[in-house]
Amino acid sequence: MSAEIAEQPAAARRTLERLMPQRESLRELAQGRRRVLLAARGSSDNAAIYGRYLLEVVAEVPTALAAPSVATHYQANLDLSDTVVVSVSQSGSTAEIVQTQQWARACGAATVAITNVDGSPLAQSADVALVTQAGPEVAVPATKTYLTQMVALGVLADALSSGEALAGDLDQVPDAVSRLLQVDVAAAAEALAVADQVVVSGRGLLLGTALETALKMEETCLRPVRGYSYADLRHGPISVVSEGLLAVLVAAAHGPLAEPMADLVRDLHARGARVLGIGGTPTFAELCDLHLPGPDLSEAVEPIASIVPAQLMIEQMARRLGLDPDNPRGLSKVTQTEFAG
Amino acid sequence: MSAEIAEQPAAARRTLERLMPQRESLRELAQGRRRVLLAARGSSDNAAIYGRYLLEVVAEVPTALAAPSVATHYQANLDLSDTVVVSVSQSGSTAEIVQTQQWARACGAATVAITNVDGSPLAQSADVALVTQAGPEVAVPATKTYLTQMVALGVLADALSSGEALAGDLDQVPDAVSRLLQVDVAAAAEALAVADQVVVSGRGLLLGTALETALKMEETCLRPVRGYSYADLRHGPISVVSEGLLAVLVAAAHGPLAEPMADLVRDLHARGARVLGIGGTPTFAELCDLHLPGPDLSEAVEPIASIVPAQLMIEQMARRLGLDPDNPRGLSKVTQTEFAG
Repeated sequence: MSAEIAEQPAAARRTLERLMPQRESLRELAQGRRRVLLAARGSSDNAAIYGRYLLEVVAEVPTALAAPSVATHYQANLDLSDTVVVSVSQSGSTAEIVQTQQWARACGAATVAITNVDGSPLAQSADVALVTQAGPEVAVPATKTYLTQMVALGVLADALSSGEALAGDLDQVPDAVSRLLQVDVAAAAEALAVADQVVVSGRGLLLGTALETALKMEETCLRPVRGYSYADLRHGPISVVSEGLLAVLVAAAHGPLAEPMADLVRDLHARGARVLGIGGTPTFAELCDLHLPGPDLSEAVEPIASIVPAQLMIEQMARRLGLDPDNPRGLSKVTQTEFAG
Repeated sequence: MSAEIAEQPAAARRTLERLMPQRESLRELAQGRRRVLLAARGSSDNAAIYGRYLLEVVAEVPTALAAPSVATHYQANLDLSDTVVVSVSQSGSTAEIVQTQQWARACGAATVAITNVDGSPLAQSADVALVTQAGPEVAVPATKTYLTQMVALGVLADALSSGEALAGDLDQVPDAVSRLLQVDVAAAAEALAVADQVVVSGRGLLLGTALETALKMEETCLRPVRGYSYADLRHGPISVVSEGLLAVLVAAAHGPLAEPMADLVRDLHARGARVLGIGGTPTFAELCDLHLPGPDLSEAVEPIASIVPAQLMIEQMARRLGLDPDNPRGLSKVTQTEFAG
């Protein structure tokens, strides 16, 4: 896992070089279509959540997340002739995502695959395949494949944007990721390892980062960790917050959702919780009990890099707990939702 | 809370009587529009998740859940002229949902409000207001307002369906809810009260029921409870399952997702967890360590009633823990995502 984390600047750069020239094909494919539907599971789904916000906020294309069982089990007969369906899967062979892509085509959709494996079933049968250039990922927890999926979604949003493009912002991502590899996460990893309970929260463009942080911590450190949107946390679960809880908040440095995160820190403190912050404004950083810096990037592409401090602290937390972060118990690289046989 | 739970058969019947005659207005409103977007938070969002599956699977209308911050904070400029936006809010005055409805109208959408308060801001400014007839809900945890929101979504799906309608199935819901009020939940409440850890899972049409069960247990019993879709549970969190965990599985009695739930019970048992099942097939019921019956209804409307055994066991669990289920700590009836002032 630590090798894969370190390879991310190069993986992001290679992915940009490979995918940016495909923007014209993406524009042609989207001609006359009005919306995007993203299909994914697990870490890829967390990348898709970022893509959903990015496509709506930057490209101004109505975008939704597919419910794969609508395709695979209910086989609903939907008219998707106005839709570009984007399938996101590291392996390109997760059965239910492959089936969902087939269903989408039968429903009239144009199809785009985002996968790390050239020649995989998803890549072969999509109208346009965006093949990320992460290289083989040996560790089970997805890191560089997740980050390059977000790069691919950035390229897609750039292609579908009519206004000022994301291209310049995307160019800065690899260097920002490099800088974040130097963050000292020892105190954060220690605090997480001894915490009674951990929740993770974020919102908007950074919601996917918060959910990916929670999922990665569960997979890698075998601890129950809940991930919530800021709003979902407020609607109920906040009542469970009490002493002994460590809240990990992933915050934006800029944009309309940056300031309100400081209020959430104050509220969590009033309930007796401690807060470990990643990124955010200077006020937010100062309020947190522990803080890791985020990337110095525009709000739109910040989430591509903001996962890096979280990856580093989770890797270190796992070792601190005596676990092997490369081979967590009970997981395999390609997850089948249904049992085989 | 127990008073509200008991009022649900009458609340569902009144709601059907009031809303069924509005189907023609809904059909007219949806003329020439191709998709539905649901906007909600908290328990209303769990009802919306049911509505999303129902509209796609039964009415065959592409449907998605809105991300309210895209409207309220990013103020994205989306073309929603092909869309019916449905706002779901018990009070009809949750600020961010009211703002989302205003934004949707400005983006060209037709608007439907599902709310329990006639004359509320949402009801007043929607093109069609579906006012549920739950009556005033005094207890803080939503029960009868949640159930009647699902009834309203059933009426909407019936109105937008071209094929065989849901009307006959919906008619049977009030009696099915009545019968479920007699379920003996004592053993389930006791098992939950003493469990080290609880997760809840469900899928497809019943995913909303699973998430609502988890949210209600957190709010009412002040315990951290994670709710997962079946697929999300498989993609990572399953690795955290171990002895001492009690998994609550909400299962369908019929349909393409009924059988696979029995496999999930076997897998959870192999990892040392115990399983409390609600509904499902006879095989599923037999495999569970504890089991509560579900409703005898068609798959499409089953979720409207399947929350009832969960409500009963949660109310009893709260009392068993010495808590007041009507007034949980730290919550109020109308949740504002942002702080006032």
